[in-house]
Amino acid sequence: VPTHVFLNSAVVPVGRARISVLDRGLLYGDGLFETLRTYGGKPFALRAHLERLRTSARLLGIRVPARPWERDIAALLRRNRLHARDAWVRITLTRGPARPGLLPPARTQPTVIMTAGAVDPGLVTAQRRGATVVLLPFARRGFLAEHKVLDYLPGMLGKVIAASHSAFEALYVDSDGYVTEGTTCNLFVCRRGQLLTPPAVEILPGVTRRLVLALAAADGLRIVERRLRVADVRSAAEAFLTSSVAEVVPIVRLGKRRLGTGKVGECTRHVQASYRQLVDKMVNQRSTI
Amino acid sequence: VPTHVFLNSAVVPVGRARISVLDRGLLYGDGLFETLRTYGGKPFALRAHLERLRTSARLLGIRVPARPWERDIAALLRRNRLHARDAWVRITLTRGPARPGLLPPARTQPTVIMTAGAVDPGLVTAQRRGATVVLLPFARRGFLAEHKVLDYLPGMLGKVIAASHSAFEALYVDSDGYVTEGTTCNLFVCRRGQLLTPPAVEILPGVTRRLVLALAAADGLRIVERRLRVADVRSAAEAFLTSSVAEVVPIVRLGKRRLGTGKVGECTRHVQASYRQLVDKMVNQRSTI
Repeated sequence: VPTHVFLNSAVVPVGRARISVLDRGLLYGDGLFETLRTYGGKPFALRAHLERLRTSARLLGIRVPARPWERDIAALLRRNRLHARDAWVRITLTRGPARPGLLPPARTQPTVIMTAGAVDPGLVTAQRRGATVVLLPFARRGFLAEHKVLDYLPGMLGKVIAASHSAFEALYVDSDGYVTEGTTCNLFVCRRGQLLTPPAVEILPGVTRRLVLALAAADGLRIVERRLRVADVRSAAEAFLTSSVAEVVPIVRLGKRRLGTGKVGECTRHVQASYRQLVDKMVNQRSTI
Repeated sequence: VPTHVFLNSAVVPVGRARISVLDRGLLYGDGLFETLRTYGGKPFALRAHLERLRTSARLLGIRVPARPWERDIAALLRRNRLHARDAWVRITLTRGPARPGLLPPARTQPTVIMTAGAVDPGLVTAQRRGATVVLLPFARRGFLAEHKVLDYLPGMLGKVIAASHSAFEALYVDSDGYVTEGTTCNLFVCRRGQLLTPPAVEILPGVTRRLVLALAAADGLRIVERRLRVADVRSAAEAFLTSSVAEVVPIVRLGKRRLGTGKVGECTRHVQASYRQLVDKMVNQRSTI
């Protein structure tokens, strides 16, 4: 459990970090979030995350407060003794407290919360040896699935199902039989020298997904953005997950069945190496992605 | 703005009603709510609302605390000086605060919040003269649409669109062209002596919807639960909305077009009268619905 969180303008002990029960983030899910990685105390791709936050906030009509984000994050990490470690930071933005009623008032004082934690050491094992994923009988749908809104109930249920199968992640399958994304990751498949991933429609357009696509294009990989059927995933030579926190995690088992050879393949290793290079480069130069 | 809210075990001044920023209701939308009407201080259909809350809480694995709900509601109304008025009460239940992470811990201390307010006097006008509704280019979808989960972003956006057209309510239209429900109401249509309403699949199964169906059946009306296309609503002789707070509100305009005669029709008046009778009866006998 974190000892300190950032609330609106300052880092405070978690026991004193309290918000009004009339906060619209709580009552209506009226808010957004971003989760990013820090490497040795430096946030990675902060600019890309803030850009996505601002785009979604514009849609919802929520003002994003001007903050010295890097300094706030540094203070939060220091107070949690995470500044020298690999950690994650979550930025939560809500419309703030208001008089009850679904229609939001014209002006509110948004709530900003930042939480942080150490990256789970089990993740390194998953990155090296590959992970098991399971398929879910449901998906997130609609245009709001493209925004990192507070509501994560489908993801919560997905994680419960994944945990009950000792799986690392669960993949959504929509009612048309397409595998859309994981609960907190995007999905890629390697097939016949091509890198395939679902288009960023009715899925979360991940920052890491975008970076992996750019790196793969630069490396001369053939990229196809198209919807993936369950059979496309089952018959893939390789598949992997991407997210800011998990980076690139190979999928080696789909439920009880092996995916491909059941070992981490060449295409995935290549993407992992390119991503690692980018991280190292950006962190050493102070990231401006 | 309410002066007092109920939080976990007691009625407290709203300024002192604060919850942890680690509450899963806020961070993940991990919770549920119910909104019910009170008439002269007495909650209507409390049992039905609690039953729906418990059913959904079982799905999510959230424990519903045992509370003397009627007494808690009475105390909340009294402190807000709403005990002699027509009011609404919202019960919000979250999984409570927990260590960050999408997978919920096995045991948490759920958070219970109750808020209350006076019923908007404009509602009486809408019930008498009928209301304008607009159609939305999106819908809530999936099995979670059948549960009163905290996330109401589609509804929030719907209410913003309704307000921009000075409409009372907005109706969801899914990508297949079916009108599913309003942002906070269920939809009924009267056509050729039949009462039609979408089946309770991927919509919120309203308590008032269920009561209206039971009353209509008892009155010998022909009821058909089937999906409604936009054309079915446009060509309806009459249509109305139901919800616990709004009760039965006639629809007399669909956007800029008149619905039916543009006046409140006989079928709707009949349903309103039956519902009013039920409310009077139950409130006088102390409701056990």
